[in-house]
Amino acid sequence: MSVFEVLTNDNGSSARRGRLQTAHGTIETPVFMPVGTRGSVKGLTPLQLKDTGSSIVLANTYHMMIRPGAEIVDALGDLHGLMGWDGPILTDSGGYQVFSLSTLNRVGDDGVEFASHIDGRKIYMDAEIATTVQNQLGADIIMCFDECTPFPAKREQIQVAVDRTIRWAEICKKTHSRDDQLLFGIVQGGVDPEMRSLCAEELIKLDFPGYAIGGLSVGEGHENMIRTTQHTAALLPSDKPRYLMGVGMPVDIVAAVHAGVDMFDCVLPTRNGRNAFAFTKNGPIRMRNSMHAQDTGPIDPDCPCYCCRNFGRGTLRHFFNVGEMLGPILVTIHNIVFYQRLMAEIRERIEAGTFSYWALESIELTNALESESISEYKIA
Amino acid sequence: MSVFEVLTNDNGSSARRGRLQTAHGTIETPVFMPVGTRGSVKGLTPLQLKDTGSSIVLANTYHMMIRPGAEIVDALGDLHGLMGWDGPILTDSGGYQVFSLSTLNRVGDDGVEFASHIDGRKIYMDAEIATTVQNQLGADIIMCFDECTPFPAKREQIQVAVDRTIRWAEICKKTHSRDDQLLFGIVQGGVDPEMRSLCAEELIKLDFPGYAIGGLSVGEGHENMIRTTQHTAALLPSDKPRYLMGVGMPVDIVAAVHAGVDMFDCVLPTRNGRNAFAFTKNGPIRMRNSMHAQDTGPIDPDCPCYCCRNFGRGTLRHFFNVGEMLGPILVTIHNIVFYQRLMAEIRERIEAGTFSYWALESIELTNALESESISEYKIA
Repeated sequence: MSVFEVLTNDNGSSARRGRLQTAHGTIETPVFMPVGTRGSVKGLTPLQLKDTGSSIVLANTYHMMIRPGAEIVDALGDLHGLMGWDGPILTDSGGYQVFSLSTLNRVGDDGVEFASHIDGRKIYMDAEIATTVQNQLGADIIMCFDECTPFPAKREQIQVAVDRTIRWAEICKKTHSRDDQLLFGIVQGGVDPEMRSLCAEELIKLDFPGYAIGGLSVGEGHENMIRTTQHTAALLPSDKPRYLMGVGMPVDIVAAVHAGVDMFDCVLPTRNGRNAFAFTKNGPIRMRNSMHAQDTGPIDPDCPCYCCRNFGRGTLRHFFNVGEMLGPILVTIHNIVFYQRLMAEIRERIEAGTFSYWALESIELTNALESESISEYKIA
Repeated sequence: MSVFEVLTNDNGSSARRGRLQTAHGTIETPVFMPVGTRGSVKGLTPLQLKDTGSSIVLANTYHMMIRPGAEIVDALGDLHGLMGWDGPILTDSGGYQVFSLSTLNRVGDDGVEFASHIDGRKIYMDAEIATTVQNQLGADIIMCFDECTPFPAKREQIQVAVDRTIRWAEICKKTHSRDDQLLFGIVQGGVDPEMRSLCAEELIKLDFPGYAIGGLSVGEGHENMIRTTQHTAALLPSDKPRYLMGVGMPVDIVAAVHAGVDMFDCVLPTRNGRNAFAFTKNGPIRMRNSMHAQDTGPIDPDCPCYCCRNFGRGTLRHFFNVGEMLGPILVTIHNIVFYQRLMAEIRERIEAGTFSYWALESIELTNALESESISEYKIA
């Protein structure tokens, strides 16, 4: 029996409405997964997180492996016990952070030796270790150890990363020891369609229960990202979930769903929330702005979130102004709800057959707004 | 009709079980009020605060007056609107912070000129202004502007402060313009019983709906504090609520209830919670200690709080260790619940007639534990 079921295929696009079964519950797709890097979506209790409409949360293997360590997580009842979250959890492979956060000592075809970003301690990581660690962390969905190339990158560099990613995927699959965890493959290949095709083709042979598109949102821009996502998503089996890692802005998500992507994670709603940046349909609102000082109205009068039902912009501005934790907490709640409402609208529109027209209109509108603000910026 | 009603007087002590009516709800006394200095109990939403069993919250006039300013608070729907808290609120007079936090430029018999601790801006504060500001802030209970003497202080210094406190109380009463706010008088006088008697006597003539005992918990120690509280509480009208400001440790609260005090506020449960210090019946637990690393048990297995029901000590230790906000938030919740459960037990025991024996036993036990730890400390 397959863990993933496509309920509705959109007529005008590659979008689909699906359902993914995990050991800790069912996920309605397309889905957005808030990021709980070190075992907590910053500032939110699991109860508050559930109230945002989030069904699955992401934790970072690299961070949890360094502190408190996979064995301690295991002893605390794996990530579910530690986080106080009994719903589905996904862990990334740690690859992205090994390459971006740590001081690399040696990258080889077998693995990576790096210095911890916390205490400089030398750590060795390879496909086998990344998988064993994720088996210990106990998330419902775990990821293959991969090499993410920067943007821009030379073809040879991409080729090396793709070769390693494929070889490492085989090792991950062989090492993976738990039936209750779904191991996803990750397609790399930069913005090179041939490299993406090669990587996808080889990973599909390994028959993973789901596939991710990795190595994007690293500076290549919306156009490159969407083109690569469209190309790659189309190569992946239609009966398996597709996960676009680390993406993105609302417009990126709409475009990627249009291209057939089912799963997303991104730090934007949480990180921006902590920085007083609130998402709304009419564009961002910067809560520190003194224009909000006496405003009793909520961030968005149509938003049903706890923040918008209970706090005015003036209060939020005050909290950020004096450094009260409640500011970041409330805007984080609002932003996650904004993302979850976007996903709910996407799912409803796919079901109702109104997605593709709405999606293209949304994307065009956003692009128009962006070019407008860019040209304004250029004039000023 | 009186706003305060004594429901039960304890047989073996001056403790009483009471009920105080305010414009935003009824308070069951003895009561503990968590501190929301700048309009928020740090890290907690009003919903989470209500879940701790808290019925009234304190905000600081000095802080709110400086940022965002009383007029802005007023525009945001007063403190209730700003804080998203529809229950009772109490504001202090600002006096304590003016004398402790700001750089004083001039203290006179009329008022105080000081420099803001934020930007050095010069601000003048007197009894009239403190009252007008509190009228604007809109709390249900507001306090007279007073002068708090440090410990130790010379008799002449205490005398001057007491004289000013009495004169200022008259001005506060005259200035106070809102029927929906209860203005409490504050008895000063250091640890000098004659000064306390003089101050209480004069304030009682002004017929306030409640009286506070101020100027304690400033370094005089448990013995001095309790002796002064016993002396002062006995002078105050039995049909008015008595509020011991800024107190204290659980043992201080039990002793002060025994002496006839009805209301308390203190930063200990919140500030200590943020510093990984958890209150339990068996003494404090320091959550950063590595002994908790693999402990899946809660802070207190008998505690019904959200933290204890959902998180083990190992998780809390991890959150503090990596600097996740959720650590301070969860231990703050636990500590406030610890205080509120203590108050609930006090109220139940007064009703059941078992308070005085239990109180003396608790105080002796705590004192024994403390002398023990002091002697251990001296040996080591």
